Amino acid sequence: MDTKKIINLDNVKLSEDKTEVILIDQTQLPNSLEYIRVKTPEELFDAIFHLKVRGAPAIGIAAAYGIYVSARQIKSDNYDDFLAEFRKQKKYIDSSRPTAVNLSWALNRMEDVIVGNNDKSISDILSLLEKECISIHEEDIAMCQAISEYGLSLIEDGDGILTHCNAGPLATSKYGTALGPLLLGKEKGMNFRVFADETRPLLQGARLTTYELHHAGVDVTLICDNMASIVMKNGWINACFVGCDRVAANGDAANKIGTSGVAILAKHYGIPFYVLGPTSTIDMNCKTGDDIDIELRDPSEISKKFYEKPMAPEDVKCYNPAFDVTDHSLIAGIVTEKGICRAPYTESLSALFKDE
Amino acid sequence: MDTKKIINLDNVKLSEDKTEVILIDQTQLPNSLEYIRVKTPEELFDAIFHLKVRGAPAIGIAAAYGIYVSARQIKSDNYDDFLAEFRKQKKYIDSSRPTAVNLSWALNRMEDVIVGNNDKSISDILSLLEKECISIHEEDIAMCQAISEYGLSLIEDGDGILTHCNAGPLATSKYGTALGPLLLGKEKGMNFRVFADETRPLLQGARLTTYELHHAGVDVTLICDNMASIVMKNGWINACFVGCDRVAANGDAANKIGTSGVAILAKHYGIPFYVLGPTSTIDMNCKTGDDIDIELRDPSEISKKFYEKPMAPEDVKCYNPAFDVTDHSLIAGIVTEKGICRAPYTESLSALFKDE
Repeated sequence: MDTKKIINLDNVKLSEDKTEVILIDQTQLPNSLEYIRVKTPEELFDAIFHLKVRGAPAIGIAAAYGIYVSARQIKSDNYDDFLAEFRKQKKYIDSSRPTAVNLSWALNRMEDVIVGNNDKSISDILSLLEKECISIHEEDIAMCQAISEYGLSLIEDGDGILTHCNAGPLATSKYGTALGPLLLGKEKGMNFRVFADETRPLLQGARLTTYELHHAGVDVTLICDNMASIVMKNGWINACFVGCDRVAANGDAANKIGTSGVAILAKHYGIPFYVLGPTSTIDMNCKTGDDIDIELRDPSEISKKFYEKPMAPEDVKCYNPAFDVTDHSLIAGIVTEKGICRAPYTESLSALFKDE
Repeated sequence: MDTKKIINLDNVKLSEDKTEVILIDQTQLPNSLEYIRVKTPEELFDAIFHLKVRGAPAIGIAAAYGIYVSARQIKSDNYDDFLAEFRKQKKYIDSSRPTAVNLSWALNRMEDVIVGNNDKSISDILSLLEKECISIHEEDIAMCQAISEYGLSLIEDGDGILTHCNAGPLATSKYGTALGPLLLGKEKGMNFRVFADETRPLLQGARLTTYELHHAGVDVTLICDNMASIVMKNGWINACFVGCDRVAANGDAANKIGTSGVAILAKHYGIPFYVLGPTSTIDMNCKTGDDIDIELRDPSEISKKFYEKPMAPEDVKCYNPAFDVTDHSLIAGIVTEKGICRAPYTESLSALFKDE
């Protein structure tokens, strides 16, 4: 596969008859490329909860398409009944994962369409909902492209880049956020040397990031998370690029567990650490990272999953936070589709939302 | 199992008829407790290379017993031939793993016995070799006990301790080094809350550290390596205890890959980071960590081993260093059987060897 093929991989789309969301089952990668078809809120919850679709922007797009598909199934022509049933579905889907803000952001955009059109017929509202979820998807493609361009301005041909987890096309729409500059650069004939943290426990870096970069012809080397320090010490890294699940108003950024550790190492070795994500990931209602809810996942993801045999004694305790918060003081820049924010973030982030 | 049973687990011993070294096959833990019997240099090389026996002090003990067992098989009564054959075996065994200094340190002690007794019969030399390997083992037991006592003086009942890889009884003889204070404290009725890094790629923390601590009744929680940052940020850690494979004269300490990252995180969060190991691990011939040879292992340990299915694309590059070097500036103390060394290490470490 070449770069173009990778960045055009349809990881989330609406079926032609609009009755299903078609998703790449990311838990099967890199061993097989399988698609699943989601019709009901329950199936969507399962797909998000079990990380068949993951990555904050991709979750948002899937949720928008998914709630449109299930809204079409609501058997009522009465506006109030329709809205009540929609809200029930929305609340349920929204509870599938707590940390990424894009999930509720996308669902809120869909609800706003219904609330803002209470004078219209259910059939007209459904048409508007369809337009809205397509807009959310198309806007994400444009945002990723803009983020990629801005991110590319931060690095030079030949640079070594370290990334954590997966913030590529599979996690978003085209290009991705953290991987966007690398894929865009590749298209422009640039070559980077990328080090991908495997990202335990669910190995999104090993399974997805190396899959995307390797198939796009980008020079990528897989490392265990605990090798980031030696790779930086070896002088191989010029910048760190990571995605984000929720950014607080002060710039504290929640992302996949281990991101804060990478940021601390980068600071120690004098390497700039960049967070890349659309403005939809910035939650001005969160003052600081302390306000961000960190999802705790099943301990067996650490002690059992993926292994032939249990890798720890049967009844040993495991602590399994899915995300952590990187302090704004460790972040050299937050790259959005509207430009690159620098410290002090309280000012630069709020400036992004001035026109709204 | 209680603490006593765990710390008396015989991980390395000589068979009664002195023809075999009996080792716990640590690659089978925690799923089964299996012993292997080693008779030849080739079998010993395999056991060390494939980490059936691992942990710097345990490798040293196994190598001493192993070369004694194979020296007994040398079919020559001529001193020069005996020494030449011994040296051939020694060079081969010594090449099984490059980073830990204890391997060559133990083999050198055995060779010194032969060189220092060139006036004796081969039969007498074999008796002296037997005494020497038993001494190496017994000294390690005493050293671990002393290290455990000194280490225990650094922490208080109820403290949270983070450890990386495995430096418990399985990696040494009794007690262990980094885990020694925790097991000794448990015997004295103290309770610590231990967080064990799983330690990718070979999961010694998940498989061995939790096994030892859990069965000894110590409160242990398994985390992925990339969770050390959030655990420290949560305020759960009062000190970090790690073992070491080779310490340079300036205090730079080589230990399992990822250790330097833990030290950088600890410094960031203001948590003291201690290295525990016998003086046999200190290599005054290495001026700094730059002189320490870092073993690079098979990339498939990252991309394939332990998993039901390949966890990365078939032909993706992996970088797989087995160790890294923690800069002395990040180390709050180096705990040896002779006491606790503090910075400046060039002075405190060389003082350890003054009497020799």
